[in-house]
Order: sequence, then C-alpha cells, then structure tokens
Amino acid sequence: MALIVHKYGGTSVGTTEKIEAVAEKVIKHKNAGNQIIVVVSAMSGETNRLVALAHAISDQPVPRELDVLLATGEQVTIALLCMALEKRGCKARSYTGGQVHILTDNAHNKARIREIEDRHIRADLEADQVVVVAGFQGVDEMGNITTLGRGGSDTTAVALAAALKADECQIYTDVDGVYTTDPRIEPKARRLSKITFEEMLEMASLGSKVLQIRSVEFAGKYQVPLRVLSSFEEGEGTLITLEDEAVEEARISGIAFNRDEAQLTVSGVPDQPGIAAGILGPISDANIEVDMIVQNVAADDTTDFTFTVNRGDYKKAMKILQQVVKDMGAREVKGDEAIVKISLVGVGMRSHAGIASKMFQALAAENINIRMISTSEIKISVVVNQKYLELGVRALHAAFGLDREPDPV
Amino acid sequence: MALIVHKYGGTSVGTTEKIEAVAEKVIKHKNAGNQIIVVVSAMSGETNRLVALAHAISDQPVPRELDVLLATGEQVTIALLCMALEKRGCKARSYTGGQVHILTDNAHNKARIREIEDRHIRADLEADQVVVVAGFQGVDEMGNITTLGRGGSDTTAVALAAALKADECQIYTDVDGVYTTDPRIEPKARRLSKITFEEMLEMASLGSKVLQIRSVEFAGKYQVPLRVLSSFEEGEGTLITLEDEAVEEARISGIAFNRDEAQLTVSGVPDQPGIAAGILGPISDANIEVDMIVQNVAADDTTDFTFTVNRGDYKKAMKILQQVVKDMGAREVKGDEAIVKISLVGVGMRSHAGIASKMFQALAAENINIRMISTSEIKISVVVNQKYLELGVRALHAAFGLDREPDPV
Repeated sequence: MALIVHKYGGTSVGTTEKIEAVAEKVIKHKNAGNQIIVVVSAMSGETNRLVALAHAISDQPVPRELDVLLATGEQVTIALLCMALEKRGCKARSYTGGQVHILTDNAHNKARIREIEDRHIRADLEADQVVVVAGFQGVDEMGNITTLGRGGSDTTAVALAAALKADECQIYTDVDGVYTTDPRIEPKARRLSKITFEEMLEMASLGSKVLQIRSVEFAGKYQVPLRVLSSFEEGEGTLITLEDEAVEEARISGIAFNRDEAQLTVSGVPDQPGIAAGILGPISDANIEVDMIVQNVAADDTTDFTFTVNRGDYKKAMKILQQVVKDMGAREVKGDEAIVKISLVGVGMRSHAGIASKMFQALAAENINIRMISTSEIKISVVVNQKYLELGVRALHAAFGLDREPDPV
Repeated sequence: MALIVHKYGGTSVGTTEKIEAVAEKVIKHKNAGNQIIVVVSAMSGETNRLVALAHAISDQPVPRELDVLLATGEQVTIALLCMALEKRGCKARSYTGGQVHILTDNAHNKARIREIEDRHIRADLEADQVVVVAGFQGVDEMGNITTLGRGGSDTTAVALAAALKADECQIYTDVDGVYTTDPRIEPKARRLSKITFEEMLEMASLGSKVLQIRSVEFAGKYQVPLRVLSSFEEGEGTLITLEDEAVEEARISGIAFNRDEAQLTVSGVPDQPGIAAGILGPISDANIEVDMIVQNVAADDTTDFTFTVNRGDYKKAMKILQQVVKDMGAREVKGDEAIVKISLVGVGMRSHAGIASKMFQALAAENINIRMISTSEIKISVVVNQKYLELGVRALHAAFGLDREPDPV
C-alpha cells in the first residue's frame, strides 16, 4: 500500500462540479489500494474576492488579519471536498493548517513551514479515511494563522509528503506535465516522463510556471518524489526525481527561455581587482537583481564587463552605471533591451564539451549571433537578439532530437 | 474602566462600508474609557451563500464539514473589522472560535458552549487592544470546529461576557430596543428602558424576535446585564437585567401575542384521576407541542378539558382526539383555529389581583369575549377570537398606560 499526497490547485476546484470530479479521482486512487492525503487551494477567484474585500477597507491591510481572511478560502474547499467524498461513501476528514498544526515562522503573508504534526493524519489514514488538508496556510507558535504566499499550496503538499514519508507527491494542474520547451513556440515539444529536481529548478526559473520553485527546492531537499499531472486528462505526467545514478551520458531535458531580460555592458574598465564589486555594488544597493554576469579576459589594460537585469530595471540600471563609468574612469556604458536568453538544460552536460559546441553550431547554422554565453553544471545559456527567440528554440530542439523519446539508458 | 462586550449581527456588518461604521462605533466606546470585546456574525448573505455551495454537492452535507464551511463566514468578518480598526489607529486582534478556545460539546451544527479560555483576551485587553471574536463557532475537545446554530453569535457574546465578568453585553441589531408591544399593531408602543430576563423570555417566546432565547437564558443564568441597541441609530436601547430589588409595585412591561395557535376542547370527560394524562399522552406521543392547558372544576360528574397547539398541528391533534374521545367515553371534541393568545407580561403581577380584573374589564369594555385564561408568575394570557387581536392589544396598551413612562419607583 502506497501513501500518496494529491494537490489540486484553484482551477481544479473552481466549481462544485469540479470538486466532485476531484472526489471521483481521489476515490479511484484510493480504491487502487493507496492511502491518500489531499491538499487543496481556494476555489479559483475566491482569493481575489477576499483580497478585494480587504482592499475595500484598507490599501495596506494588517498582515496578520489578511492571513485570517485569506485562510478562509482553502477552508471552504476542504469542507466541500469532504462532503463530496462522504456523499460517495468515502470516509474523509478535513483539516485547516491550524488544526493539523502546520507550524510556520511568524512572517505573515509569506511564512515558511517549520514542522508538521502527523499524529492526527496517521490515525485517520489507519482508520481508512482520506485526509483533506487546506493548502497555503499554517499557524505560528502563538497560534496566529499564517499563510505561505500565493502558490503556497504546492509547498504544503510537499511538506506533508516529506513529514509523512509519502511515496509520491502528485501535483494536479491544468497542464499534463513538464515539456521539453514551450509548445506554443515549438509544436513538436514533448512531455518529459522524468526530470531531475535541479533541471526542474532551471526550467521553472527560466519560465515554465508549472510548479512553485520553493516547493521544488523543498521536494529536492527532503527527496520527495514529485509528479506533475493534469487534473482533467488521464496520463502519467512528469516525475521530478533525484538524479538517476545510472546516467553517465549527458541528457538534454529541455530548452528554457526568458524574454524579460536586458543587457548592460561597461567597456574600457581599468583591469584591476575590485571592478566587479565597483560596478555591481551600486546596482545591488538599488535592489536590482542581476541574472547573467560575464567578464572576459582583458585584451589590453582594460576589460569589458557585461550583465543582464530584468527588463523593467533597465533604465534605472543604465542611469546608475553612467555615474559608475565616470567614477571609475571607464570608457562608456552600452545597453540593449531587445535581447532574450535561451538555455539548454540537462544533467551531465558540463563534462561533455560536445554539447556546447553542438549548441553553438546549431545556432550558427541559422545565422544567429551569440551575444553572451554562460554555463553551469546543468545548463548552457546564451543571449541573442530577441528576434531569434523562436528560430533559436526550434533549432536547438531539433539539433538535440528533443521531439523523440531518448534511448533507454 | 468598564469591560463591554459588543455584538453585531449580519445586517450590521453586511458590507465593508457597514463594517467601517462598526469600527467607528467601537472606537467611540473605547475612547470613552472602556475595554471592548466585539463579537461579529457573518456578513449578511454569506451564510446562505455557503449553505448553497454545500447543497450543490449534497442534500445532507456531513455535519462536521458543514461546520468547517460555515465557520469561514465569521472568520471573514473578524479579519475585515480588525483591518478597519487598525486603519484608524486602533490596535485590534481577531480570534476564531478555535483560537480563543470556545470549548463546546461535539453536537455539530447546534453545539453548546462549555467553557471559554480567557487568557489571550485578558492579555490583549491589558495591552489596550480591541478583541474581535468570531460568533457562532467553537471547537470540541478533539479540536473539531463546531457551530452553535443560527443566531448563535448572541450566545457567544453572552458567554464571553459571563466568562470575563463584563460589565455589560450590548447586542446591536436593526431595532432600537424592546417595545411594550408590536408597533405595527399599536403605534403608541413605547421602547422599554429596562426589562427583566424573565419578562424578556416571555416577550421573546411570544413573538418579539429581538434576541435568541438561548442567549437570554444564558445571560439570566450568569447574571450578565444585556442591552439591545440599534446598530444604525444612537440611543440607550433596552437593558435586560435582574429584577429590581426595590420593586414592590406590580409593573407591566408589555403585551405579547401569538397568532399561531389553535384551541381544542374535549368535553363531557368523566371526572376522574388520570384524564389529563389520558388526553395529552397520545398528543405528546405524536410530537405535538402543547402550549396553554385549562381544566375547570367539574360541574357535574364530567368536566371539560381545553388546550392549545401550534396551528400547523391542529388537524393532526383533532384526529388523535377523536379516537381518545371514543376510548375514554367522553362526549365530544371541538376545536377552533381562529384564535389568538394575548399576554400581559410584567413582574409582580401575581400578587396583585387588581391587574387581572383590570385586564378583563378592559377587554369586556370592548365586548371581547375571553375563551381561555391562564396565568403565571409574570404573565396573564387570554385566548380570544382572532378578529379581536388588534383591538385587544390596543385596549390593554391603553388601560395599563404603556404609552407613558412609568412613574419612578
């Protein structure tokens, strides 16, 4: 008998009809011989309705009370789902975050889970009951209601799976898994049956918004097998798991991209210790997040320093750098807003130089000029002119044969 | 410094604007130098919305889960009220029934309060905070969410006032107090500044639906001074309190009435022990509630036995009595659906025979024939033909000078 945690988001429980469909799905899994814990979000639209009520009263509602208010959203769903289960003769019990004692810190509106009491849940499971837990919420040590921030229901599900050593945590959503790249750009994009936590983190942070990053980190840390599936269609989804021990081959999982970047270059910087700090210090003081950073070996006694920021921060960063150029006696600052980042993601690629050269060749064959390159253990990212986004993604997708299932290892 | 419990019902917190108005009122009372605990209901319409969601899923939702669902209604209001208070610079903290530990039995949907933990509340009050508590809800010993049934917020307020030995429990509602009779029948009806718990119980059960009877009983038992006031207008309302020690005079508080009665008479009953049980036994076995019961001294060797039931039970009762008449050898059973009960309510009337004769004279002066009479410590009830309801109420209102303030004792 396996212990499975299911998580259904707002769209999956958006109406009473959909809640009944979730009940059917849960019962099917239970009848297959599993113990089931279900984590649910608020019905879609409900959180927005509650936030609107709060904002009708105050632009800046007290965080403690906002949590008291928002926590009602999931409480409604757990009750309705249990009613739907019981109507079908399936014993079920609902728990709010406070009742099941999901202990968090006291950072209202963005609390982090510290501990979960598994006593009630274990007893219920042993009594053959489905346990339904409100996602997104907990209590601090003083018994105040806290929430984990939007999307926190994923984290609740993973944390419960970790605390109860569940065999799998299944996240039901409106997509049927994680794809090799965005199917809207490359129609040949293929659903991955498996991906590692690290790859998923790269895929997620680069634009695939299937799962909350925090929940993936959490799952990785506690080694909880995580599966993304569709609420509405049958299918195996994508399993997010630890790296296969057997994989020695490099394996490309997918191609991520980010349209929301802008590039800044400070050129003619005197080549001496401290220039990176001299340039990035004022940027970080202005709360601007930096993504890629590239500095090449100096050709003469000066060097060029390039980095990317979110496009919304471009003008602010440019203004800061103009002052920095003066202060440090550099030549000039140049920038470009019309760029995108394309990343090849996959385990084991670092040790396979062939991957990078194959990537660059594929782009060159389409006459795509590479502006910046940066690499990590599991990805190679390039910055190119934004007009090449679709072409570049498709070229790489084809070059690495991502439309085909990989050969079994 | 006085400790006051305020209670605002669904209509008083029906919109965010009304919640802001409640916040203003609370702050005014606090600034007058009081410590304030506020109990609120769900925003009007919210409980019905939640019940509709439940019924979309099941005709008979599991009671435990219905409570989990319904409890969210008040939780929304406490959060919004605290936001409105904090926006105005007034420190406030919200508590659900579970958080403030309103311990109840486990009778879901109609639980009874056993105990209230006052630790958090006292600490907050001492820290100069307004405490806002969700009405209508509690938790049982296992931590399950329970509700007290509709209108239970009044009971929560009274129970909190009792537990914290508050100086007064103020119930804000859409009427400005308790009246000498229904103003729709007698426009000269006057708001009472004071009424005893016992009188209030008679007035309430006889048709004045200002307060939940249970909360009045509770307030009487724990001697909590209770005041009914308008949410929307200024005024002193009506104080419901213990009997004045000083009152030796009879004092008539008001005239209640009940249109929903029907009368049944079994005549020619052999006058021997056991007839009352013989007649009422089968009635009570059929779950029919009996209100007034009158049996007169036997004129010969038979007697007449008369009682009243809710009008909806009339036909059922009549059918049962036709069998009873046969079984016990009585003469016949007669009935009348076209009757009403009018009651004069007031402390001290029993010991003042003059009250009853004044009442009967006032009715006789209008040619109103009295069909039945019954008396208790604090009321005299008569049954008359229903066409005399308005005339009778007005005649008594005038005869006892209820349109004028009583002379100070």
